[in-house]
Amino acid sequence: MTRTIIASATKEIAMGFDEKFCVIGERINPTGRKKLAAEMQAGNFDTVKADALAQVAAGATMLDVNAGVTAVNPNETEPPLMVQTLEIVQELVDVPLSIDSSVTAAIEAGLKVAKGRPLVNSVTGEEEKLEAILPLIKKYNVPVVAISNDETGISEDPDVRFAVAKKIVERAADFGIPAHDIVVDPLVMPIGAMGTAGKQVFALVRRLREELGVNTTCGLSNISFGLPHRHGINAAFIPMCIASGMTSAIMNPCRPQEMEMVHAANVLAGNDQDCTEWIMNYKDHAANAASGTPNAAPAAAGRAGGRRGGRAARIGG
Amino acid sequence: MTRTIIASATKEIAMGFDEKFCVIGERINPTGRKKLAAEMQAGNFDTVKADALAQVAAGATMLDVNAGVTAVNPNETEPPLMVQTLEIVQELVDVPLSIDSSVTAAIEAGLKVAKGRPLVNSVTGEEEKLEAILPLIKKYNVPVVAISNDETGISEDPDVRFAVAKKIVERAADFGIPAHDIVVDPLVMPIGAMGTAGKQVFALVRRLREELGVNTTCGLSNISFGLPHRHGINAAFIPMCIASGMTSAIMNPCRPQEMEMVHAANVLAGNDQDCTEWIMNYKDHAANAASGTPNAAPAAAGRAGGRRGGRAARIGG
Repeated sequence: MTRTIIASATKEIAMGFDEKFCVIGERINPTGRKKLAAEMQAGNFDTVKADALAQVAAGATMLDVNAGVTAVNPNETEPPLMVQTLEIVQELVDVPLSIDSSVTAAIEAGLKVAKGRPLVNSVTGEEEKLEAILPLIKKYNVPVVAISNDETGISEDPDVRFAVAKKIVERAADFGIPAHDIVVDPLVMPIGAMGTAGKQVFALVRRLREELGVNTTCGLSNISFGLPHRHGINAAFIPMCIASGMTSAIMNPCRPQEMEMVHAANVLAGNDQDCTEWIMNYKDHAANAASGTPNAAPAAAGRAGGRRGGRAARIGG
Repeated sequence: MTRTIIASATKEIAMGFDEKFCVIGERINPTGRKKLAAEMQAGNFDTVKADALAQVAAGATMLDVNAGVTAVNPNETEPPLMVQTLEIVQELVDVPLSIDSSVTAAIEAGLKVAKGRPLVNSVTGEEEKLEAILPLIKKYNVPVVAISNDETGISEDPDVRFAVAKKIVERAADFGIPAHDIVVDPLVMPIGAMGTAGKQVFALVRRLREELGVNTTCGLSNISFGLPHRHGINAAFIPMCIASGMTSAIMNPCRPQEMEMVHAANVLAGNDQDCTEWIMNYKDHAANAASGTPNAAPAAAGRAGGRRGGRAARIGG
C-alpha cells in the first residue's frame, strides 16, 4: 500500500490510494501574482496570511509555499524569503506544507526551518536537478514531487513522460529513497491545445500507480488554460483524475465548484467513510437537493435503507 | 469499434467509446410521478410534451419513453398508452427514442409504431425475459438495454452482475444479435448504503468494455439515493463513469450542474473536437470564469497558443 506521509509540527496526513484526495492549496505563490510579489518583497505578508487561512478554511489538506518573487538573483533573494514565508505560515496554520521552489538553496533553507515532514516541490528528470535535490530528500527524509520532464523539455508523448518518471523513481532508489516518497506529476497539457491531454493523464496516472506504485499529483488548472468557464472543466477533471487513481492535486481550494467535486469524488471512490464528510458539508444544502427529480420520492427513507437498483424494481414487475 | 446506432425518422446517433456521452432523458416516465400518471391515463399529454421539448432543449441526445401508469392490468392498458405516447413524442421532437417498459406487449406495440431505430429498455438475465424480448430485438433489428439482474435478484457481488451481463450477451448472440446492439446496465447501488457502489460500477464498466466490447448505461441518480445535495454526487459521478468508459446514462438533462459535467467530461475524454461544443455553450459564461485564479493571467493568449506545463516553466528556471 503506497502511503506518503506529510506532516506539520502537529498534524500528519497520508496521501494514498485509499485516502481522501489530498488538496494542496496553490495560492501562496507570487509567480504570476505581481501584487503579491511586491508585497512579499516589501516584507508585507498580509496576503500570504489571508491566503493561508482562507485555503485551510476552504478545506485544503496542505499548503504549497512558493517565494519566487523575482528572476533576478533568485539564489540570493529566494532562500531567506522562503524561510520567512514558511515560518509565518506554519505559525498561523497547522496543516502540512510543501516547499515549492526551482532554487535548490531555497529548498534547503526551507527544509532547515520547516517543522514536521514537509513535501518538497520539486525534482525533475534533469541530471542537474536529480543531483541537487535527491541528496536533500535523503538527508531530510522527506517526500518529493517528481515532474516528468527532463533536459529535452516536456514531451508530448506520454510514454516518454512515463519513462522520465520511472528514471526519477529509480535514481531516487539509488539514493535510498523509497517509491512511496515520490509523488509523480505526469504533467497536464491544456486540453484546448491538445485534445488528447485528458486521456494522456488518465492513462499515465493508472500506469504510474500500477507499474511504479507511486502517488500522483498535478497542476490541476493547466488543463483548462485558454478555455471559457475554466471552473467547469476543472471541476469535471477532478473526478476523472480520481477515478483514474490520482491521489492529490495542486489547486485552488477556495473555488466551491472544484471542492464540491473533490468531496463528491471522495464519496464515490469509497474514501469518505459512511459519507460522513459529505453529509456534514451538505446536509443543509438548498431545498429540493435531496431528490433526484422534482417528483421523485423524498429521501426520508434514509441512507441505510436506500433501495437498490430502483429501476430494476419496475422492470421485474 | 463498438457503435450502437439509434435513430428517429430523421436523426441518427451513435453511442460509442469515441462518441460524446449519450444522455438519455428520463423524464417521460409516470413511475413515481402520480400527477403525470393521472394525466396520461386521462389522455392529457401536456406534461409529456413539455418534458419532451424541455429535455431536448437541455441537450438530451435521446429520450426514454415509459408509459407504466398502473400496476393493474398493465398488459391491457400499457400497450395502447405506449403507442399513443410514442406517437406524440416522435411527432414533436426529432431525437431518437427508447421504448421503456416491463411489459413485453407494450414493447412490441411500441416497436410497431416507432420510426427509425429505437432502443428497447430493457431485457434482464431472467429466462422468461430473455425468451420474450430477444426475439423482438432480432425481429425489429434494434438495440436493447441489458440489465444485469436475473431470477435471483440483484447481486451485491459485481462478479455475479458481470456474469449475468455476459450471459445476456451470449444469449443475444444465439439469436443473431451482435454485442454492439447490447447496452449493458451494470446496476448502480446507492453509495450511501454501500460504500463500494462507485468502485463497483467503475470496475464493471471497464470490464464490460474490455471483455465484452459492449456499450454501457445506468440509472444515474440511483447512486445518490438518500444523501443530501444529490446533484453534487450525481455531477461527480458522471465524469467518473465517463473516465471509466461508460457511454450513456438515463438521467435528467434539465439539471444544469449534471449537464455541465457531461459537456466538460466530453471535452476531457477527447470527444468534443476542438472543444467546439464547450466553447459554444460557455463562451459567455459569467465574468472571471476565464482565469484559473483571481490574479491569473487572462486567457487572451487563446486556445491554440496555450502554454504547456505552466508549472514546469518556472521549475526549470
